[in-house]
Amino acid sequence: MKILLELSYIGTGFAGYQVQPGRETVQSALQDAIERIYGVRYAVKGCSRTDAGVHALRYYATFDTDKDIPTDRLPFALNSVIDRRISVISAVEVPEDFHVRHDVREKEYEYLIRLSRIPDPFLVDRAWQFPKPLPADGISRMRQAAKAFIGRHDFSGFMANGSDVADTVRNVTRLDIIEDGELLRIRIAADGFLYNMVRIIVGTLIDTALGKIEPSDMSDIIASCDRSRAGMTAPSEGLYLRSVTFLR
Amino acid sequence: MKILLELSYIGTGFAGYQVQPGRETVQSALQDAIERIYGVRYAVKGCSRTDAGVHALRYYATFDTDKDIPTDRLPFALNSVIDRRISVISAVEVPEDFHVRHDVREKEYEYLIRLSRIPDPFLVDRAWQFPKPLPADGISRMRQAAKAFIGRHDFSGFMANGSDVADTVRNVTRLDIIEDGELLRIRIAADGFLYNMVRIIVGTLIDTALGKIEPSDMSDIIASCDRSRAGMTAPSEGLYLRSVTFLR
Repeated sequence: MKILLELSYIGTGFAGYQVQPGRETVQSALQDAIERIYGVRYAVKGCSRTDAGVHALRYYATFDTDKDIPTDRLPFALNSVIDRRISVISAVEVPEDFHVRHDVREKEYEYLIRLSRIPDPFLVDRAWQFPKPLPADGISRMRQAAKAFIGRHDFSGFMANGSDVADTVRNVTRLDIIEDGELLRIRIAADGFLYNMVRIIVGTLIDTALGKIEPSDMSDIIASCDRSRAGMTAPSEGLYLRSVTFLR
Repeated sequence: MKILLELSYIGTGFAGYQVQPGRETVQSALQDAIERIYGVRYAVKGCSRTDAGVHALRYYATFDTDKDIPTDRLPFALNSVIDRRISVISAVEVPEDFHVRHDVREKEYEYLIRLSRIPDPFLVDRAWQFPKPLPADGISRMRQAAKAFIGRHDFSGFMANGSDVADTVRNVTRLDIIEDGELLRIRIAADGFLYNMVRIIVGTLIDTALGKIEPSDMSDIIASCDRSRAGMTAPSEGLYLRSVTFLR
């Protein structure tokens, strides 16, 4: 049978989701915990390859097993042995042909920025602590620019090098900029994301707030598919995978 | 001149506020940072001796110096060299006879409890993750019991051993129990607190919620000055010094 795990994790100290020899990763910590419960090392498939330092409020992973451990007991069993940076929220059985990556309908990320000259120790490694004040019209410029991202576009100008994905068209369904005291929450949903796409969009929006990019140029910048016309890449520690919905 | 620093810190990994030989403490980290800016090691006085693992949303500390570094530049200078778990929010000059402990009028602590069988990785070391469900009337029992603490009482029954304080009478001005989703926030204000007093009050309130102590017995338990009649000591990681007000 195939088990779908719902997880949450704090990415601090992990070299990202995916297994890398000699590095602590979320996948290897998860496989370690499953091995301690099942006595067998299973290969776990994840819904997304999050980078080093990126967090997940929700994350999904599957593995196949022929051992009959009741799925409703699995979260407690796994949480009793897993690395404390990871929590197993639920476990359910899914059809054998369910694919945790191909069957994703929509993912939503949240990017957290703290606008203050004074760092908050409780948000170290958990937000982009941005010490430079934004101009008075900065957030309205970001919101204006954000509109250009909505819809189906070739986002290859918002992709980091080192990715060999064939299809670079993605459908962005929402991009909201929420003011929350000293925090700025940027929420972006799409049917999928290219490598570093959220972090480059966030960095580009901040460059727009700072006056380095004009909101009215954003549609052209996207259409140019030219990475050098987009803005900086925001650091990984502010990025949270917030929710994932599946096709079925 | 005497400088008053307003701080915030996350206590995780620190052996409490006060200097202990060979241990990482908030005071020693603060003295290290001040030494790097001033070139002299000053003794820093803190408003409270927080325990290992206890956090501070606000904390106050003073030191004396004859060097003329502008106080408005001090937070940025100190934050550039200080341990990342500590942040200097502000610095002001205070009268020479200001005493950061004797001049405290009121302190408020918040104790954070997360009620869930599933741990939240983002609250590891930052809340008491309490996996046992409270009975349906648990929170109303806590609120009933909380009333008994308000006012001037001898709280020696709510003090850990190892303290040699002479006067064990304290005036508790507020004790609020706030439900916030899966979180329970217990806020308590007083003119001062005995050693472990907040953690014993919180543990006793939880024991009351669980039915081990009757709310109607709480006044007697306080009056008995008998530690064995109070409840358990809640763990340090849920405790936050939230605010301090001074007499002048």
